Formats: sequence, structure tokens, C-alpha cells
Amino acid sequence: MSGRTHGEISGYPVGSTFLNRAQLAAAKVHRPLQGGICGGKDGAESIVVSGGYVDDEDYGDEIVYTGQGGNDPATKRQVGHQELTLGNAGLARNQLEGNPVRVIRGAGGDPSFSPPAGFRYDGLFRVVDHWRADGKDGFRIWRFRLVSLDNIDQPPIMDDAEVHAPTVIQRQVRSGPLAVKVKKLYGYHCQICDTRLETPAGPYAEAAHVRPLGRPHNGPDSLDNILCLCPNHHVLFTSGAIWIGEHLEVLDVATGQQAGTVRMAAEHAIAPSHLAYRAALHP
Amino acid sequence: MSGRTHGEISGYPVGSTFLNRAQLAAAKVHRPLQGGICGGKDGAESIVVSGGYVDDEDYGDEIVYTGQGGNDPATKRQVGHQELTLGNAGLARNQLEGNPVRVIRGAGGDPSFSPPAGFRYDGLFRVVDHWRADGKDGFRIWRFRLVSLDNIDQPPIMDDAEVHAPTVIQRQVRSGPLAVKVKKLYGYHCQICDTRLETPAGPYAEAAHVRPLGRPHNGPDSLDNILCLCPNHHVLFTSGAIWIGEHLEVLDVATGQQAGTVRMAAEHAIAPSHLAYRAALHP
Repeated sequence: MSGRTHGEISGYPVGSTFLNRAQLAAAKVHRPLQGGICGGKDGAESIVVSGGYVDDEDYGDEIVYTGQGGNDPATKRQVGHQELTLGNAGLARNQLEGNPVRVIRGAGGDPSFSPPAGFRYDGLFRVVDHWRADGKDGFRIWRFRLVSLDNIDQPPIMDDAEVHAPTVIQRQVRSGPLAVKVKKLYGYHCQICDTRLETPAGPYAEAAHVRPLGRPHNGPDSLDNILCLCPNHHVLFTSGAIWIGEHLEVLDVATGQQAGTVRMAAEHAIAPSHLAYRAALHP
Repeated sequence: MSGRTHGEISGYPVGSTFLNRAQLAAAKVHRPLQGGICGGKDGAESIVVSGGYVDDEDYGDEIVYTGQGGNDPATKRQVGHQELTLGNAGLARNQLEGNPVRVIRGAGGDPSFSPPAGFRYDGLFRVVDHWRADGKDGFRIWRFRLVSLDNIDQPPIMDDAEVHAPTVIQRQVRSGPLAVKVKKLYGYHCQICDTRLETPAGPYAEAAHVRPLGRPHNGPDSLDNILCLCPNHHVLFTSGAIWIGEHLEVLDVATGQQAGTVRMAAEHAIAPSHLAYRAALHP
């Protein structure tokens, strides 16, 4: 089990305030005195959002958070590239495991959502996505979409109260009418490996949006942006483990080798611009 | 695309009331004049919960709903077995696709949640699970766990309002500290096929509870109830496509053939009682 505390710190409910970083550290709500992310390769526990990064976007229940590194604390501008290591790797790991991070806002952040002074613990957020981008200052950054658990993770009611606390959503697959249309077009066969999962209630496949839906990507929910994949290839595709080139070749990012070709139905095409958008999200 | 309307009927918001089944049918909120389920193999649109089945359990935002068939309308008792066909297959299909059903409650249902007279449209519910059980009257029934969309499906905020309406949760994977412990025990290799999904943020696997969590199964969140599976085998296991016997043999339910053996770490064991419980949930 991870030695990290993915959850609330006893005695510090949502809304708890702190005068400074030393108090936050003493409470173990955010342990490092300087870094914005408390985390490493094994996961992240907490982050501070305090206006230190020019690319941060705060929408209250949702935050597009910039990873750590390449930043000049004096000017808050990016002066170098960021890597998917240290705390950035931790936030990505949280997404894979479904573990939440504690979000602490500081007075320097977006005035609509930040405390007037000091720091405030604002609850648990889930890392729902991460991707690479070119920041406003022209350097490569990593971005993380965080959504408040209050908004999305209400578990079904259960009799056993003990089950409640530790359970988080690790993965959420969305669907809709167009997703079903694409899946039917391929008979629920994965366009990469041809697998068709047969269940007693019928075949199962998942729809993968090439250019992601939602802020800030705003990919369309349209046929030319949807692939039919088995769950395993869906995970590999959206995590950036595989990459689809302009000729629909599947590349294994770790080895750089081609690992197949996306099979397309005659009446279906993926827009090259969506493939290019997706390819730019992961190195 | 399915010809079914999985969603609200325009002009009939949550709380709309109807004097009788004829009014419900005319409004297309629930089209059949008699059946409790409007649906077929391709999915289900709506159900009526009105106390017609002795095994129904209503908890307000959650309903354990009995499938159709084998029921004597006069006495409301089960007089025969139910099959996973017709509307029952439809509800199971909704679970696979993530499509919601309209829930209509009638005056004959649980008095805590039902209208005093006639029928009331109570909103969209997601089918989160289905399983076979022996009903109170000794016949085999199919049961469906339905959870109000208001409770669980709030999507992350998106810029594009059009994305909102058609998108539903098709699949939700839960995790927690013990799940992570089991996954680490197997190095994120699937216990059935040995697959390990490598992503840039580290390996990915899913934890499958053998005896399901939550009402009415109330399986424990304990090591002896958790398997480490790849997403594909997770889907096959929880859908009842494969079945794990007491000697950890994997059986393909459709063919009746053995399809492998569950690999176990020396320090890990699954309780036979949990395997037996799961095996009884699917035919």
C-alpha cells in the first residue's frame, strides 16, 4: 500500500485556513514548504494553487493545473520545459489509480475562488486528465484537469458504511448516441486489435474521442472524432501509451515501434486534424 | 443508432404526473399499456415501479428492481422463472452502454417514495448492475440495481453545452487502498491473461471485487475478495461472460469451456464463499 495519504487529514475539514506554508506543513495538509505538488512517481497527495503559474485556470469546481518545474518564482513565468517526473508524474499516477488530491488555494490565486489571505483547504479533487501543451511563455508544460469530488464522485448508496470512505472512481467511460453508432459500425470489434468482448447481455466496446471532449480541448462529439476500441486499447490510447499517426498507424510510444494499424470501415473516417491534436498531447 | 429514446421526453419533466397507464402511453413516457419494462434486446427506455413484484426494493435514489416475467398479476407473486430476454435483456444492455432508463413510480409501490395516486415520472436512473437471484417465492428472478442519475452522473463541466446532453457514464471503475495493494501484489499483471498495460504514467490494472460491494450483496472490501484484472477481463468477469470455479478455473460461460486458470500470488487467496456467491449471480 502506498505510504501516501490520499484523502483528508483528520482535524482539517474543507474550509480550514492556514496563515502560511509552515502551518500547512505542520498540519501535514501540504507537507513541502516550497513545492506546489506534494508527490512523486508513486502518486500525489496535495497541491497548492496560488497563482504561481501563468497557465493555471481556476473554475471553482474544476481547475486546469500546471505541473511543476521550469518556473521562475520571482516573475511566475515559465523559463524552461516541464517533464513528466516528480510531482507531475505523481498527479498522472493519481489519475490512473483514481486517487484524489487535496487542493489548497492560496491568496495569490484567482480572486473569484481564492482566500483573501493565507491558505485554505478546499477539499479533494480527482485528476481526470493530463496532457502536454505549449504554455503561454512558449515552453512545454504539463496540464492536469482536476474536478472536485463533490461534483462527480458520489458513490451509489451502500449498506456497509466502511465501504464508503476508501472507494474512489479510478476510471469513467462515457458514451452517447454517436458512440453507440460507431460501435455498431464495427460490430463492437476493437479497431486496433479486433477483440470483441462477448457478454451475456451482448457485445461490449468503448468509444474513444480522439480530440478529447471538454475544457480546454473542446473536441467535438462527432463521428470523425470517435474510435471503437476494446477497454484495454482505450486505456492505452487515452493514456498516451499508443499514438495514432496520420496514416492510421499505431505507434507504441515506449518502443517507438509500429504496433499495428487502425482498421477503418469504408463509411467512416477520422479527421486528420483530430489525430494531430491528440498526438500533440503526449510526447 | 438505436431507435429508442434513452432520456427525457420533451414536455414531461421530473415530477410529471399521469392518471393512468393510457396517459403514460400517450405521452410516450412509458409506451406499453401493460408491461413494466419498455424495452427489448437493443435496450430499455422506461420502467414502471408500482409494487407488482414482491422482490422490488425501493430506496428512493436507488431501486433494486425485479425483471419481468413469471409473475401473477393478480397476486403479485412469482409463479415461474425469469429469463434474460425481452425487457430484462434490455435493462442489461443499458448497463453495458451506460444508457439510462426513465423511472415511473405508481401508487402501488413503496409508500415512502410513490405517488398517492396514479403515476409519476421520477427521472432518469442508470442500470449499475444486474444479477440472477432466487426470489422470495422460490423462483429465479433477474434483479437490476438502478441509481438516480442525479446522484452519480454529474459530468465534469464542459465548455460545449452540446456535449452535455447525450453523454452518459458507460462504465465506472472503483478503486481504494486495498485495490492498489492487490494490484501491486501482481505487478499490475492481469491474473487471468497476464497482460500488463504500460502507460507513460506507469502500469494500469483494475481491481475486481468477487462478491460485489453494495446493496444487496454487501461483499467486503477485503483482500480475499479482490482480483487484479486487465480492463477487458474485468468487463468479462463482472458481466458474467466468464466464471471462476472453486479451483480457480476460468470458464467461458457461452461455450462451457475452460478458458484458463486464475494465477494467484503465494500470499494471496480468494475466499471460496465469495467465488460461489459470484458464480450464483450469472447462469
